[in-house]
Amino acid sequence: MSVFEKQTSLLFLFVGIIASSNLYPQKNTSKTLRPVDYVRPFVGTQGEGNTFPGATAPFGMMQFSPDTDMQLWETASGYEYSDKSIIGFSLTHLNGTGIPDLGDFLFTPVVGTPKLIPGSKEHPDSGYRSPFSHSDEEASPGYYRVLLQNSKVNVELTAGDRAGIMRLTFPKTDSAFILTDLKHVLRWNVMWSGLRVEDDRTITGYHIVNGWGKDRHLYFAARYSRPFENFRIMSDGKPVLYNGYRFRSSREAFGKNLQFLAQYETKENDVIMVKIAISATSTTNALKNLESEIPDWGFERVRNLTREKWNKELSVIDIDADETGKEVFYTSLYHAFMAPNLYQDVSGEYRGFDQNNHKANRFTNYAVFSLWDTYRATHPLFALVQQKRNVDMINSMLAHFDQSVEHLLPVWTLPANETWCMIGYHAVPVIVDAYMKGLKGFDAERAYNTVKTTAMSKTYDNVATYARLGWVPFDKENESVSKTLEYAYDDYCVAMMAKKMGKTDDYKYFMKRAKYYRNLFDPAFNLMRGRDSQGNWRTPFDPHLYVEGGDITEGTSWQYTWYVPQDVPGLIKLFRGEKNFTEKLDSLFLVTADSAKGVDDILGRIGEYWHGNEPSHHIIYLYDYANQPWKTQKHAREILKTQYGNKPNSLCGNDDCGQMSAWYMFTAMGFYPVCPGSNYYAIGSPSVNRATLHLSTGKNFTVIAKNQSENNVFIQSVRLNDKDWNSVFLPYSEIQKGGSIEFTMGPEPNKNWGLNPVVPE
Amino acid sequence: MSVFEKQTSLLFLFVGIIASSNLYPQKNTSKTLRPVDYVRPFVGTQGEGNTFPGATAPFGMMQFSPDTDMQLWETASGYEYSDKSIIGFSLTHLNGTGIPDLGDFLFTPVVGTPKLIPGSKEHPDSGYRSPFSHSDEEASPGYYRVLLQNSKVNVELTAGDRAGIMRLTFPKTDSAFILTDLKHVLRWNVMWSGLRVEDDRTITGYHIVNGWGKDRHLYFAARYSRPFENFRIMSDGKPVLYNGYRFRSSREAFGKNLQFLAQYETKENDVIMVKIAISATSTTNALKNLESEIPDWGFERVRNLTREKWNKELSVIDIDADETGKEVFYTSLYHAFMAPNLYQDVSGEYRGFDQNNHKANRFTNYAVFSLWDTYRATHPLFALVQQKRNVDMINSMLAHFDQSVEHLLPVWTLPANETWCMIGYHAVPVIVDAYMKGLKGFDAERAYNTVKTTAMSKTYDNVATYARLGWVPFDKENESVSKTLEYAYDDYCVAMMAKKMGKTDDYKYFMKRAKYYRNLFDPAFNLMRGRDSQGNWRTPFDPHLYVEGGDITEGTSWQYTWYVPQDVPGLIKLFRGEKNFTEKLDSLFLVTADSAKGVDDILGRIGEYWHGNEPSHHIIYLYDYANQPWKTQKHAREILKTQYGNKPNSLCGNDDCGQMSAWYMFTAMGFYPVCPGSNYYAIGSPSVNRATLHLSTGKNFTVIAKNQSENNVFIQSVRLNDKDWNSVFLPYSEIQKGGSIEFTMGPEPNKNWGLNPVVPE
Repeated sequence: MSVFEKQTSLLFLFVGIIASSNLYPQKNTSKTLRPVDYVRPFVGTQGEGNTFPGATAPFGMMQFSPDTDMQLWETASGYEYSDKSIIGFSLTHLNGTGIPDLGDFLFTPVVGTPKLIPGSKEHPDSGYRSPFSHSDEEASPGYYRVLLQNSKVNVELTAGDRAGIMRLTFPKTDSAFILTDLKHVLRWNVMWSGLRVEDDRTITGYHIVNGWGKDRHLYFAARYSRPFENFRIMSDGKPVLYNGYRFRSSREAFGKNLQFLAQYETKENDVIMVKIAISATSTTNALKNLESEIPDWGFERVRNLTREKWNKELSVIDIDADETGKEVFYTSLYHAFMAPNLYQDVSGEYRGFDQNNHKANRFTNYAVFSLWDTYRATHPLFALVQQKRNVDMINSMLAHFDQSVEHLLPVWTLPANETWCMIGYHAVPVIVDAYMKGLKGFDAERAYNTVKTTAMSKTYDNVATYARLGWVPFDKENESVSKTLEYAYDDYCVAMMAKKMGKTDDYKYFMKRAKYYRNLFDPAFNLMRGRDSQGNWRTPFDPHLYVEGGDITEGTSWQYTWYVPQDVPGLIKLFRGEKNFTEKLDSLFLVTADSAKGVDDILGRIGEYWHGNEPSHHIIYLYDYANQPWKTQKHAREILKTQYGNKPNSLCGNDDCGQMSAWYMFTAMGFYPVCPGSNYYAIGSPSVNRATLHLSTGKNFTVIAKNQSENNVFIQSVRLNDKDWNSVFLPYSEIQKGGSIEFTMGPEPNKNWGLNPVVPE
Repeated sequence: MSVFEKQTSLLFLFVGIIASSNLYPQKNTSKTLRPVDYVRPFVGTQGEGNTFPGATAPFGMMQFSPDTDMQLWETASGYEYSDKSIIGFSLTHLNGTGIPDLGDFLFTPVVGTPKLIPGSKEHPDSGYRSPFSHSDEEASPGYYRVLLQNSKVNVELTAGDRAGIMRLTFPKTDSAFILTDLKHVLRWNVMWSGLRVEDDRTITGYHIVNGWGKDRHLYFAARYSRPFENFRIMSDGKPVLYNGYRFRSSREAFGKNLQFLAQYETKENDVIMVKIAISATSTTNALKNLESEIPDWGFERVRNLTREKWNKELSVIDIDADETGKEVFYTSLYHAFMAPNLYQDVSGEYRGFDQNNHKANRFTNYAVFSLWDTYRATHPLFALVQQKRNVDMINSMLAHFDQSVEHLLPVWTLPANETWCMIGYHAVPVIVDAYMKGLKGFDAERAYNTVKTTAMSKTYDNVATYARLGWVPFDKENESVSKTLEYAYDDYCVAMMAKKMGKTDDYKYFMKRAKYYRNLFDPAFNLMRGRDSQGNWRTPFDPHLYVEGGDITEGTSWQYTWYVPQDVPGLIKLFRGEKNFTEKLDSLFLVTADSAKGVDDILGRIGEYWHGNEPSHHIIYLYDYANQPWKTQKHAREILKTQYGNKPNSLCGNDDCGQMSAWYMFTAMGFYPVCPGSNYYAIGSPSVNRATLHLSTGKNFTVIAKNQSENNVFIQSVRLNDKDWNSVFLPYSEIQKGGSIEFTMGPEPNKNWGLNPVVPE
């Protein structure tokens, strides 16, 4: 008997509790823990981190993860650790963004009469949402498990690159359902969708989402381990049925609000699996992705395969640290290796930015470029240990340039959608950094053309006005100060590439623009200050003012004044010397002002230094340039210690597709790419005892930190590749040839080390 | 200066009237008129015909035509001759359906401040709708012209297979616009759309329509002969513009209500052209279709090419008749050769019924199958003179079978959408008729499998119940009598194919079902009457009752009783003889009943014979089977004379994708396919003096009607391929071998001709 036929008087028989974590042990039972064993997927799921705990492969296309929220801006990944109930499990998620999107296609088990709305957190039983307990939940790379308290179904998820499996262990019931909700997305709106029952155990579907990405199309295919005993498509809550007049198939529907219900009778502990693949191009390709990646019902096979993939990727850096240090480090690496995401079918087909299907030709296509964040440390990390993927990402960006309506490099992209989020043209430093470091596999001339064309755009923001005037005028453009500073840095990168390619005129032109930061430095305040088209200063001027749509992007003048990574000595000169410079820099960690209250999701605050957002990320390293490297060392260790950890609430700001995590890894290893596109790193204070980077070139580079401890945070001396090293700068050339850097650490600063800094050319 | 910048105080300077038809003469100026010269595209545009007057190629994918209405059910083609204003010109139209759909993507010129809504018929100046006069309008195959009275713009349209050109002759103005409205469709709803400005003279776009077809996707590409002097995308009536904050391209938008405005300054008589292509698969393919079909700006080239294509297609039948007769005949042939429509890109790609893109492999894909109508005479006509296309259409239907969610042959299909409109499984007679006539180019075993599988469907309507019970019970299914009768005919077709393929068991099984019509013949009334699952007759029973959702489809029992094309002798037996049969048949042309009032768009009424709808179409030929062929002859000529003509209001019912027209052509040539799938035609009374069919096989078959005139409508004698012919049936084998049938006509019936009919096996 179908529950459809007996909407009343259901018996809810929960005979037993099914699952305990003992049933599903971790596979690696050897004594020696491996990198993958240290990953704590829940880190960053509580509060501002906006990570998700579900199952995904490294840089995978699918992120099969529970959603506890589908509305709040603050729960951009769909999962907030503090929530008490789970809506269900959707197929795609963003790691650590500040804006919600994705969360495509929810699947969840239901026992008893299925409710067709999610229900509220306050009253989870008003919908299909279920209470859960963290004691019934576990997560590890490629695996997630939870016991849903309403249905008593144990849910396990695993995922490969484009496909995953949901393993459901049911109680005894004649009303076991697996619900698919095509309307489910995070925050935004499904404008249209389609659903089709292909055979007695397979469905396909698609939807179009108008969200942060304005026209996002996604397809899926799902196959069930048992044939449906009954099924039904629901449209706007009503069953799609033949009415005895003229046939309308009950196997197919189109609408804005579609759901699918597969029904079964189950014995206690009956396992039903659903394997699901996604595609951005078609249901045909979703089916091919499914058949190719998961031809069988090998949940454990997929889980182990993905776990091994993770271990291999995480093993690019071997570290020696305490247990917590390893957990934080490998969890950071895990988060840094989530995005950009694979974005093509097994056939190589993908949806381009012209909304046409393309085939990746001699590269692997990636999507989700949070470039304002990730150009800083994430891509520089990839340039060391993920060179092939970094080159694929660059080729993906070149394809974006060709396909995009403005013929510009990406700014902030979701799959096949430019969001135009944040500012600058920071695809440029990613490309230039790779080019400067000699990465092969993309056409340099083609790349340079995209870089220069983007920097010369006549339409994008007010880049053209900036190029002509020397700054972005605040009467024409919001965030004018931040934009001016970031353009000038990006222009430095263009100049570096031009120089290396022998394009002397371009080099000179862009180096001129790289100095435009000077035009906004007001010596009356020793701060960056907005100017209008006539050159007048922003008046009145509140250097601590944080206001959306003001002159500064997500920050204050006090913070953004430090944004001259391409010419810190030049900035120091504007301050008229190191004394003024370092005094103002000191003040950043001390001042607070009412006008700088900022937003909830930017925390990690030390004075007006806000580690929870990217504009602060390079700042502590600026002491290196001003003869006070010990302050860099002190702050580095303070932030590593206070702003990171192995707990759900350990991230003080959005992980931003791995940038918060990549900052951690570099800083923990004792150096940081203050100026990607240049050929050096600034030295900080390593918190690991030892780290070996297995460079993509095949060489190894080892960081050794002798005597480092919680108290011994100060550099006493450094040997680089067996030479004494007295510079605060670590040249890429020294890493590239392989070898080691050996720090000797102590409890007090050696104020004679690292003086008279000369920034490498 | 842009009109966007001066929304007020516009000068409307209409300096001159631009166009007269003399400026655009017909190309063929020779004295001898050709078939194409006789086509009158306005026939059927007034009242019930639901034809459209615009530009299209034979069986073309694009139908570039003016729309005067986008709401009324009665104006399913978008154009009603009685309307006084034109909304604009859209790219796709249906020929003569009873339900509106298509009308995708409106283009229209505007002078002065553009209004962004269509406006009403009562107040055309409330929107971009423009008054027009038929004296400023002309149409011929592949060409349409009209002068819009509000803008004084002369609009000309021409179309190739997948692309067309709009040629606009403007007055002098600084505010000339070409508006594109992506929300425009006939009757239904655009659920989502996208628009992109590709370069300074090219746009692309798409929309998804939820209409009669539930999920219809269409793409377009448009290129302008002049670069835009200004352009703007409007979304929900607001301009898509950068706001000085974070860039959003003004070259791209997505939404439910998008419009594009191209702006120009024009001198008097300035000509601007827009060439536009469509694709069902992508904007990339729309651009390829455009470049492939119209690489230049040769409006006249395209127009002439399409005109020549029409002339070639229309020349498959040469007739000798009076001028009006030629106009009606070739206009009918023109309408019969409009659909099904080409439905693939130049690359061979098309959107399938699984909503995936496919590539047609060794066939040309066609869409729009109005099978309940067209199996009767349109496809039988194709089987004679359009064999290659008919085979392509069959292969398209086989692909449909593979792709459709129910794995059934098409019932009534729009592009990539099964509407499930009307009843029966009349793809079967189309396939079987072609098979029986020996058409090559499709896999007979594969075809038979689709035919049988469809007839054995467990889900479609109540076919399975019918198969078991012997009739469709009215307590389970609406239109049960019509469905029973039509299934029985379709089953006869399956049996014929099975027999020819040596599938004896299947032949016997389906022949049994072909007799199921007997189960609904109530001898108490000598009429077909509904029965329920228990076998009880429909009580009370009103044989004239016309009611939607009743036992009869779009008709009455008095009409549907005659629906036994596969076994008229058997039906006569049920009547217990020819006398009862012919008396009842006579009554059909005499009776009227209040309960049979029917619907507005079915006219052509002679008693309860309604020529305006298909269930009546074979009926006059039934006298042939009952020794009164002279009555067939009389009625044939009466209907040809009273229900057809060369005027806009000359069609008495929906043209139904050419079925009304195909009836005319067969009947005018003196024979009609009463039972497609059989190998004979029933003879009527030719109204042409002579007709030569250039069969697709290369042979010719000529009809000669000696002494025929308005008064001489009765057959005196017949010679078939130089033999005296006394049978009312014309075997296909005689046509197939080529030759002639020669009628000698007179003013009184020869009641000795054509007696003792023996239906050919």
